[in-house]
Amino acid sequence: MGLRVVLADGTVLDTGNKCVKDVAGYTIKDLFIGSEGTLGVITEVLLRLIPKPKAKRTLLATYGKMTDAAETISAIIAAKIIPCTLEFLDSVTINCVEDYAKIGLPRDAEAILLMETDGHPAVVEDEAAAMAEIAKKNGARDVRIAADAIESATLAAARRTAFSALARIAPTVILEDATVPRSELAKMVAFIQGISKKYGLKIGTFGHMGDGNLHPTFLTNERNKEEIEKVEAAMKEIFDYAIGLGGTITGEHGVGIAKRPFLPGQLGEASIGLHKRIKAAMDPNGILNPGKIF
Amino acid sequence: MGLRVVLADGTVLDTGNKCVKDVAGYTIKDLFIGSEGTLGVITEVLLRLIPKPKAKRTLLATYGKMTDAAETISAIIAAKIIPCTLEFLDSVTINCVEDYAKIGLPRDAEAILLMETDGHPAVVEDEAAAMAEIAKKNGARDVRIAADAIESATLAAARRTAFSALARIAPTVILEDATVPRSELAKMVAFIQGISKKYGLKIGTFGHMGDGNLHPTFLTNERNKEEIEKVEAAMKEIFDYAIGLGGTITGEHGVGIAKRPFLPGQLGEASIGLHKRIKAAMDPNGILNPGKIF
Repeated sequence: MGLRVVLADGTVLDTGNKCVKDVAGYTIKDLFIGSEGTLGVITEVLLRLIPKPKAKRTLLATYGKMTDAAETISAIIAAKIIPCTLEFLDSVTINCVEDYAKIGLPRDAEAILLMETDGHPAVVEDEAAAMAEIAKKNGARDVRIAADAIESATLAAARRTAFSALARIAPTVILEDATVPRSELAKMVAFIQGISKKYGLKIGTFGHMGDGNLHPTFLTNERNKEEIEKVEAAMKEIFDYAIGLGGTITGEHGVGIAKRPFLPGQLGEASIGLHKRIKAAMDPNGILNPGKIF
Repeated sequence: MGLRVVLADGTVLDTGNKCVKDVAGYTIKDLFIGSEGTLGVITEVLLRLIPKPKAKRTLLATYGKMTDAAETISAIIAAKIIPCTLEFLDSVTINCVEDYAKIGLPRDAEAILLMETDGHPAVVEDEAAAMAEIAKKNGARDVRIAADAIESATLAAARRTAFSALARIAPTVILEDATVPRSELAKMVAFIQGISKKYGLKIGTFGHMGDGNLHPTFLTNERNKEEIEKVEAAMKEIFDYAIGLGGTITGEHGVGIAKRPFLPGQLGEASIGLHKRIKAAMDPNGILNPGKIF
């Protein structure tokens, strides 16, 4: 809700406040959020706390076909349910997780969806039942509804350990966060699988399906120059495809240095020009986190 | 979720997309929102639609003391209820509405709260019951829960007609939208009442209490120069007091020309300086809605 920011010339700026509504002047606060330190140094943050939900339910659905998992996501959104968790694991990730955490996941599944709903107990019961039915209708082989908090935690562990499980099997792990409109998820996942075959690369994909946010994770070795070149070519294809679907090269991780070359392809010339004018106006000597974003 | 904007140099900029998450580059889109035409001309807007809630309940609580109404608001927020409507009418407004719409509002009440909750039927029932109890506990003389949609509409009419009802009794109506953190509402309303007495001005106050957003409405005559001078002095005091409480001079209406002199008092020198640098970077010839905001 508010920030204290030190600007490039040393001025201390306070922006935002405790008001629920405020339209006085430009939305300066949001310009700093996600600017990766290139417009100012944030030294204090005013946050709103959200009350802990009264109830929660966890479900795990298993699929023989990736497209069925994607259809389930679309059907859940169409049913106007907004789950607090709607996470996806592909078969590479499922097998790495099972090797690592031994949760009892089906190794032959092509996709797993972890679904959680929270809030008022009556809403949670209705939504959990509706999601289980939607999953079954859309081809889920199996749907488990956690009976209690312990079973919930076990099911959620499948997703929570995904990155660690993938990270241990390769010397170098490169995690991306290409994001697309939810309606394009099935296409995006299929494309990543195609790219994995085309380049002969091992890619585990998991992510926040409810947000259209995927984490294609390259399992590689940075000492293998030839393979890293393939990874870079594969990554470029994935980003281009995501942009073509109306998506973004980064849903939550930011641009930094690694994704800088891909930003103009997404934002276009007009936007990059405006970014540079804003940056020059706020940091004329280019002293704030130089070289990042663009 | 997205905007098409024509920039000062004629460039067409597309910013935002259908992704739920996107952190590629600066939050350019939000910079244009609420910029009152001073940074670009918005020609297309991409909006997200929210599903219509399944159920809704309307309540009307009547108070003999303004402070009891304010305490009710605080208690509702503390109970973690977020009503979709939490509207307030003071005694001046109640009487004008009753003259105009003849709803049967109590003319001797010092404050009325209109409360509405919507969403899942079970949540709506729980929240309506909880708000009724909170209102009674905090000194409401009377709490009416609408039995059906028709009674709901009647109760809601009290708030909906407030501006029209006030507007018909004076040649000139000046509506402000000072907003404060919700915890400061009682102080703000009492201060406005004091200002009304101090200057001998008729001020009807109503507004979105749930957002801390008040509409002190001056009932005056612009041909009466002496009274208009008092209105201006009163307004300045109200804005200064709102700012002192951590509030804003405008919760939803914007700055324009009328509130331009008050903006530096709220934002401070560092923020105004930054506003001007951003404006100069994006509109170097000052051709976009000149003279507005600052």
